[in-house]
Amino acid sequence: MTTVLAAMPPAYDSGDTAWMLAATAMVLLMTPALAFFYGGMVRTKHILVMLKMSFASLCFVTIAWYLIGYSLAFGPDVGGVGLIGNLDHAFLRGIGPETLTDSFPTYIYATFQMGFAIVTVALISGSIAGRASMRGWLVFSVLWLLIVYVPIAHWVFDTENGWISAHLGALDFAGGLPVELNSGIAGLAAALVIRGPADFRRKEPRPSNIPLVMIGVALLWFGWLAFNAGSALRDTGTAATAFINTQLAAAGAMVTWPLVEYARTRKVTMMGVGSSAVAGMVAITPACGEIDPTGALITGLVTGAFCAWAVTLKYRLNVDDTLDVVGVHGAGGFVGLLMVGLFATRDVSGKEGLFYGGGLSLLWRQVVAILAVAAFSFVLTWLIAKAVDKVVGFSEKEEYAAVPGEDDERAYDIRTVTELEPTADGRGLDKETLAQIQQLLRSHRDR
Amino acid sequence: MTTVLAAMPPAYDSGDTAWMLAATAMVLLMTPALAFFYGGMVRTKHILVMLKMSFASLCFVTIAWYLIGYSLAFGPDVGGVGLIGNLDHAFLRGIGPETLTDSFPTYIYATFQMGFAIVTVALISGSIAGRASMRGWLVFSVLWLLIVYVPIAHWVFDTENGWISAHLGALDFAGGLPVELNSGIAGLAAALVIRGPADFRRKEPRPSNIPLVMIGVALLWFGWLAFNAGSALRDTGTAATAFINTQLAAAGAMVTWPLVEYARTRKVTMMGVGSSAVAGMVAITPACGEIDPTGALITGLVTGAFCAWAVTLKYRLNVDDTLDVVGVHGAGGFVGLLMVGLFATRDVSGKEGLFYGGGLSLLWRQVVAILAVAAFSFVLTWLIAKAVDKVVGFSEKEEYAAVPGEDDERAYDIRTVTELEPTADGRGLDKETLAQIQQLLRSHRDR
Amino acid sequence: MTTVLAAMPPAYDSGDTAWMLAATAMVLLMTPALAFFYGGMVRTKHILVMLKMSFASLCFVTIAWYLIGYSLAFGPDVGGVGLIGNLDHAFLRGIGPETLTDSFPTYIYATFQMGFAIVTVALISGSIAGRASMRGWLVFSVLWLLIVYVPIAHWVFDTENGWISAHLGALDFAGGLPVELNSGIAGLAAALVIRGPADFRRKEPRPSNIPLVMIGVALLWFGWLAFNAGSALRDTGTAATAFINTQLAAAGAMVTWPLVEYARTRKVTMMGVGSSAVAGMVAITPACGEIDPTGALITGLVTGAFCAWAVTLKYRLNVDDTLDVVGVHGAGGFVGLLMVGLFATRDVSGKEGLFYGGGLSLLWRQVVAILAVAAFSFVLTWLIAKAVDKVVGFSEKEEYAAVPGEDDERAYDIRTVTELEPTADGRGLDKETLAQIQQLLRSHRDR
Repeated sequence: MTTVLAAMPPAYDSGDTAWMLAATAMVLLMTPALAFFYGGMVRTKHILVMLKMSFASLCFVTIAWYLIGYSLAFGPDVGGVGLIGNLDHAFLRGIGPETLTDSFPTYIYATFQMGFAIVTVALISGSIAGRASMRGWLVFSVLWLLIVYVPIAHWVFDTENGWISAHLGALDFAGGLPVELNSGIAGLAAALVIRGPADFRRKEPRPSNIPLVMIGVALLWFGWLAFNAGSALRDTGTAATAFINTQLAAAGAMVTWPLVEYARTRKVTMMGVGSSAVAGMVAITPACGEIDPTGALITGLVTGAFCAWAVTLKYRLNVDDTLDVVGVHGAGGFVGLLMVGLFATRDVSGKEGLFYGGGLSLLWRQVVAILAVAAFSFVLTWLIAKAVDKVVGFSEKEEYAAVPGEDDERAYDIRTVTELEPTADGRGLDKETLAQIQQLLRSHRDR
Repeated sequence: MTTVLAAMPPAYDSGDTAWMLAATAMVLLMTPALAFFYGGMVRTKHILVMLKMSFASLCFVTIAWYLIGYSLAFGPDVGGVGLIGNLDHAFLRGIGPETLTDSFPTYIYATFQMGFAIVTVALISGSIAGRASMRGWLVFSVLWLLIVYVPIAHWVFDTENGWISAHLGALDFAGGLPVELNSGIAGLAAALVIRGPADFRRKEPRPSNIPLVMIGVALLWFGWLAFNAGSALRDTGTAATAFINTQLAAAGAMVTWPLVEYARTRKVTMMGVGSSAVAGMVAITPACGEIDPTGALITGLVTGAFCAWAVTLKYRLNVDDTLDVVGVHGAGGFVGLLMVGLFATRDVSGKEGLFYGGGLSLLWRQVVAILAVAAFSFVLTWLIAKAVDKVVGFSEKEEYAAVPGEDDERAYDIRTVTELEPTADGRGLDKETLAQIQQLLRSHRDR
Repeated sequence: MTTVLAAMPPAYDSGDTAWMLAATAMVLLMTPALAFFYGGMVRTKHILVMLKMSFASLCFVTIAWYLIGYSLAFGPDVGGVGLIGNLDHAFLRGIGPETLTDSFPTYIYATFQMGFAIVTVALISGSIAGRASMRGWLVFSVLWLLIVYVPIAHWVFDTENGWISAHLGALDFAGGLPVELNSGIAGLAAALVIRGPADFRRKEPRPSNIPLVMIGVALLWFGWLAFNAGSALRDTGTAATAFINTQLAAAGAMVTWPLVEYARTRKVTMMGVGSSAVAGMVAITPACGEIDPTGALITGLVTGAFCAWAVTLKYRLNVDDTLDVVGVHGAGGFVGLLMVGLFATRDVSGKEGLFYGGGLSLLWRQVVAILAVAAFSFVLTWLIAKAVDKVVGFSEKEEYAAVPGEDDERAYDIRTVTELEPTADGRGLDKETLAQIQQLLRSHRDR
């Protein structure tokens, strides 16, 4: 999975390339999808801020990835210790249309991995929704990409050199460590630096637009199938296994999360259903190419219940992880990484977890990898967030609390057809006053 | 198209696999798309119920398919009579990453077909929108999948054993029988069991969110291209023919449905345009790989006019098929299945319809298949719906009629910018009262 | 890239076909995406009109393309002068499932190119948003397709015969001339024929639904990756280069447009961010398979700044290009076509621009092509729009100015949960009046 400089003919596979092109487009769609997922969850006046944070990631991570990010993550290893790549491929230097990674063009591999980086950065915005300055976010996101994401990506995705995959031997098929656990832990650190109000629970708004949230879930799901199956980097049986496993884990989590929610509140909310599907796909991300479909369903079932509980921790710990980045991506990634150590099966993975005769050999490696990534991500993210807050200002409660001025851009300027007519129940208001209000509303409805 | 247990090398085709991976993801996106299509059509307070019904199908059909659905539909035939598969592949047992169906991994074939099952179940929810209990729906949907969908899928999609495709010799390229006609007839039976109010026509609400409906249409269209072209199970000329035929049939129906609507009402509505595109794709589903592009355009033109008429039948027959499942999927599927008997052409299909020199040989087979599937679907669906209503309760008019309480989850909590200012027309309301109302509205707009 | 009648075996490539099938579906999704992009930008009462205009293009361009459009654009050249194709392939005659274009079925090539034609026609609707009659649009769109789009497509996309690509030798990888520059110039001509009110700037409404605009941007972006990378017509390194270049150009424009906007207004709007991404992809369209990633990023950076300025011209020139078709597609296409002449590099393109040692040889060809297409498009579009306005009526200010009647179809019938409760600020309104209004609103909220 490192860049191999080779002429096109030897290894090029037209089918693999076709799949990776489609998969890369699908992965890039995940960040707008996340924008809708997050945007629909916040109150009306914060929708555009959430959309802008995700689209900022699409812009700046793309450019930073091209400049040095890709090379640091996937360039030749520095010193052979598996910590970071060098800058040989800065500006994508040394890569051309004919350069291949495995059996398809490196340009596609670089863009596929760019999609991972973009969405991971964007994920963090959910833990500080509605109280981070855009200026701070822009600086934070680029620093975080280069200081936190890029090294971890090297540790895990460079399977020939990265210390976690090559030396430690932990398994992470599609990014449970760099994407899921990492964004969850980073979200925790960011939420601790940019704290919400002490009584944030009471002030929690209803989601402003749940259909928009579900449009996000739908497109995330669509992209995730490519995120996971594309991580096979070819379109063989492993890709197919990752694909069906993703579907089964999502479905499994959609059973148990709503059950936990129902046990607690006697209701099953659309928000719970949507979040559960995401949680299931988070957990299967590291495991999808290591376990079989039965293991995937079990992973989903366990994760749904676990995350339904984990998202309530923020109230007990009084950390305003506003859109549950920690409870879904952190907790879900954690479960999924452990499941690999339990359910990895030779037919799929080539390695064996505890329940398939592999003993603890794989499980302890998973635990070490989890601890290392969590510690690295937490400490560095906290430092970066603190520094950004000091230097350019990251926490801006003031700005958001204010009612937007008349000139500000607003998400909606919708004229609906609500009519004010008297009904059986509508006794009150004398006819004349009613007519005045009706007239007034009508005259403004369609201007 | 049955599962062939074989090592990967012999038949594996990397290009076919690439297409089937992408196509499967696109087909799985169709059920969220349907959720938006349905959700936008109902009144605000029912949006989340419609979304939940489709997402419930995504959850429970996925799991039931893994458990036994796939094996019953595509496992080795029981007794060689083509009625049902056995349980050899329950839990996807006996299938691994290396198992192939035709030239690509069986895991992908199983997931592609899973997508068909999920969307077919979800389709039925449209005929009982706003008056079915969620508890009843959960039980109904799993029973209906296993008792109605799975056998018909076996009859049609198991081309080596299914009695309709292998013995009768009727043609159904991508699921006109199991998906379209079946869901339409099942919708009719369900609507008869869970009847709407006698005066349902007068109470019909406006669609609450037509842009959301059209997002559904757009994503359904996108997925349908893969639904139909993917049904070739390889990416050769037949897939290409199915692809262009799908586009042409949709366009054809978009001409004639609006014309019929205009003749009747002097208006062309967005809802009519959206529904017509769906109707055209319904009809081409069985025919897309059997007829040529000219036949596809004719199919679309005929279907648009026919379905524009068929959706009005519910008022005459007083059956509250709320979102026109019967009039679009039932009627459209019916037309498409007949068109195969008329327009099948040797170049595409290998068989010939009435207009291409094949006489009635194919047409009567199509008619028999239609009658058999319609009768089976109607009777079984009616019995299941009745039983579910008796045992767990399926019809819950009360629940929906009630105004949701303050604590309930709502689709929207949108603050729009409607201002109450006096205008030329807005004479009335003395200045002071006006200012009070303005103040009141403003203070709540952005809380 | 012309139709080669050949049996399937010789050149058929399963991987190329897989990619082109997926890419074609993605390109076809761009027109609904454009409908959402445009629909969200206009005021509530015009949303459905904008959606209908794009869906009309999906319908009528599909059919006209099948009838004669494809043949005129891609059929055998008439007289060998590269101006237009003949009617040999009218009704797709002479093409069957086995017919290939390059290495994949011609049916897919015809549908891929159909997607280009559909979206180009739909683009023009943005320049006359809210003041064109639907009747006029239907006539205009078909005439414009056949008289303006089809010839230019032949000049550019028929690389063996078209006078621009084969004889002049200008480069346009994915349609900067027929799609972008052409729609921009046509939008200018249409806006001059169907003029807005003199004081259109003051009357400009806020966008009614910015999240809907961004759903459009997201799906346009997704489709554009296939639009550009699919234009390689195979899935080799050139497709990969076009893919990553599209992403980099979008990101580049997203940096500079907001900077220009900020310099002017001290704000960065979501609308600016969304438009900038589109502008970047417009500009890279002709260049994506001719320049390297560094050139692509520079193209994006230049285009963002240029288009942020170009969209303000309409106020100075007093031309109501309502949704900035001229300023984004015209100006962006212009920049991109020039960039090819500057940055084309041998490794990617086989040719060299001014900055890579090619001198002015390529640049002057680009300029000639720009001038020819712009002149042809402007004159013909103006004549068609004038003729349509005379004969069937194109400009219908009256219709749109009127408040839609009670019976008309409306985009939204949303009941939101805004409550009228007194707050700290909400002093005023005596309790009784307040209760009356609340009661009134509540009784209508969920009917």
